[in-house]
Amino acid sequence: MTLPDDGSANQAARPLAGLQVVELGSFVAIPSAGLALRQAGARVIRVDPVGGAPDVRRWPLGRDGRSLYWAGLNRGKESVELDLASAAGQAALRKLVCAGGAGGGILLTNLAAKAWLADDLLRRDRPDLIYVQVTGRADGGTAVDYTVNAASGLAYATGPEDGAGPVNQALPAWDLLAGAHVAFAVLAAARYRAATGSGTFCQVPLEDVALSTLTTLGYLPEAQLTGASRPPQGNHLYGTFGAALPLADGSQVMIVALTRRQWRSLLEVTGTAAVAAALETALGADFSDEGQRYVHRKVLLAILEPWFAARSAAEAAAALRGTPLLWAPFRHLADVAAGLTEAGDGGAVWPAEEDGFGLNLVTEGPSRRDGHRPPLTRAPRLGEHTDSVLAELTATRQAPEHHSGTTDH
Amino acid sequence: MTLPDDGSANQAARPLAGLQVVELGSFVAIPSAGLALRQAGARVIRVDPVGGAPDVRRWPLGRDGRSLYWAGLNRGKESVELDLASAAGQAALRKLVCAGGAGGGILLTNLAAKAWLADDLLRRDRPDLIYVQVTGRADGGTAVDYTVNAASGLAYATGPEDGAGPVNQALPAWDLLAGAHVAFAVLAAARYRAATGSGTFCQVPLEDVALSTLTTLGYLPEAQLTGASRPPQGNHLYGTFGAALPLADGSQVMIVALTRRQWRSLLEVTGTAAVAAALETALGADFSDEGQRYVHRKVLLAILEPWFAARSAAEAAAALRGTPLLWAPFRHLADVAAGLTEAGDGGAVWPAEEDGFGLNLVTEGPSRRDGHRPPLTRAPRLGEHTDSVLAELTATRQAPEHHSGTTDH
Repeated sequence: MTLPDDGSANQAARPLAGLQVVELGSFVAIPSAGLALRQAGARVIRVDPVGGAPDVRRWPLGRDGRSLYWAGLNRGKESVELDLASAAGQAALRKLVCAGGAGGGILLTNLAAKAWLADDLLRRDRPDLIYVQVTGRADGGTAVDYTVNAASGLAYATGPEDGAGPVNQALPAWDLLAGAHVAFAVLAAARYRAATGSGTFCQVPLEDVALSTLTTLGYLPEAQLTGASRPPQGNHLYGTFGAALPLADGSQVMIVALTRRQWRSLLEVTGTAAVAAALETALGADFSDEGQRYVHRKVLLAILEPWFAARSAAEAAAALRGTPLLWAPFRHLADVAAGLTEAGDGGAVWPAEEDGFGLNLVTEGPSRRDGHRPPLTRAPRLGEHTDSVLAELTATRQAPEHHSGTTDH
Repeated sequence: MTLPDDGSANQAARPLAGLQVVELGSFVAIPSAGLALRQAGARVIRVDPVGGAPDVRRWPLGRDGRSLYWAGLNRGKESVELDLASAAGQAALRKLVCAGGAGGGILLTNLAAKAWLADDLLRRDRPDLIYVQVTGRADGGTAVDYTVNAASGLAYATGPEDGAGPVNQALPAWDLLAGAHVAFAVLAAARYRAATGSGTFCQVPLEDVALSTLTTLGYLPEAQLTGASRPPQGNHLYGTFGAALPLADGSQVMIVALTRRQWRSLLEVTGTAAVAAALETALGADFSDEGQRYVHRKVLLAILEPWFAARSAAEAAAALRGTPLLWAPFRHLADVAAGLTEAGDGGAVWPAEEDGFGLNLVTEGPSRRDGHRPPLTRAPRLGEHTDSVLAELTATRQAPEHHSGTTDH
């Protein structure tokens, strides 16, 4: 497919039209925040130092050597290169942040506080500024997803049940959550600004994203209460029944039974109801309670395993389909990618021919608004919009009564 | 500390005051979306079936047997129990969703489409309804974080480098990201409604949250391009230098060198610059390129290990402190919890005495707005607000010209 004209989009699919956001930050948190805003219709201008930020060549690379990672995180944004080591470049950045009319004046950054980018300096020119800053640690110290995860305690609760060492997540989940939180914070601040005229200076430490999440979900309160650390659970689910079960063909299937109905269904499908009942009596257990299913997970796994080990993936799927059970085969990335390529257009991820990348899997995010997904946009080349954006700024300066054409709702 | 009066909060810390949200959903995605909205000042009413949803007793449990998980995810919300199997309960829920004045008419749910909760049925009474629905699969089928993760391909890219089997994340990252995305979608739709008067029906399939994220970050485009699945990296970082290094005392430290400056610093601190230079020459490699640091990670790890293995955590920290390196000791949850308890008030997570739970670690999210964190709220008891909320609805019905006291900005 070719890239559709942006103007063809259903209006509800672009609810943030009129917002103008400047982002200055690399890797995942800030760029993913800008991406979410852009996918919902905001104009997002990513500013990089000349030559790009340290993420400009981050793996994986595409056929032409450009970063698929950078392209994916910056799709649909305008890319501006500025010499941020010079006073002129710093001044241009500040002007750009303060521009954009009523929907502008929004900066996302993970740059540690620099005098030339201080909140109060920018706020002099734009009192209603929305300034969202991601820091590593709450004290302003540097940290990234992988060091935050190490320090959070989660790595020692991840991985095989008998694993001694810490296991990091392959997904930069804290960065992604911080990014989602930043995008949310921008809209909350924009709502507040529309109501009161006031701007907001919002700080989101990556470390606090991890600590507050692990508190909300009970990991840290439990550790505080018991004085003990939750050990790694392998592929079990803490406090309920979930397990990875090997099949006859060497593949595995994830089975989850959260409710009593799902648990009964699992026993029925596998013909283990009588064995489970005998175990309940003998152990004095009640497997209708999800906590007890967790406590007795090893023996339950052992009585379920033979049914799965005797079946291929297709046979297991045929038996599980139509039951209330939650289940899915574990798949490899290449098989998922091949399936998406074969499925073609229509989903949240689809294949498209792209300049430089060839046939590529693309996305515009997971949401459908009134049935519409956002139209596909392409990734900019680094600095592609430097001239046009700076020219627009100059024009704005010469005619200060005209804003850049965007209006706030 | 005691719970402060909500009214004492700085106004900027409650930018969403005036929004009224009804959430109907269990486990993580929908409740975490409602929580983010509530932490930013929205009124959030969680509706459960009588006796609670399947998550009401999810582990971990507190001292009094109540779920710390449920309490954490519902802190500060109002809790309403309705008999959702009855026509009267269903009608009450619909009235509640449509209430709330200009800032109301917002429903978050993960309930599969039911005729009595259909978007077009609710929209008859509230044409500007904001209806955000999380489904499992894009086709409407059921799925949860752990089955989505299995099907996404990520589990086979997680865990020890020599691991054969899939490794699930201990964190329900897809649920959390879906929740953050839902909270964002609500504010985007509210902005669109303020500008146009129109509501939005927004669908967010959990499966698509995973697939679009793995596409944005390059995992799936890479697999499509190469036809191969990225193998698990252990605690290495794909495409750059990051590693878990064992120390003399048996603990481990996470070290990350993303930039050239950080890489040079690591070689300097550990006294390995000459060895690395000799390796570069012999291997024809250029370790100033992060991709090559990744390719040669095993030999680089081997030359770095002796320095770390000869030092305690305190000695390593003393040497690493003040360098540009990104590093953190791997900690256990119990040590993190003890540290937060000892640190007391001031951070994003702090200890507080709570009714039923005793001394507990609590949070109101990671953000500080204009330097303020939101004031601590407490978790409701299941159904605690049923009577007050229903009485409010009756009053609203009798005097339809008076809304429930909230106004939209």
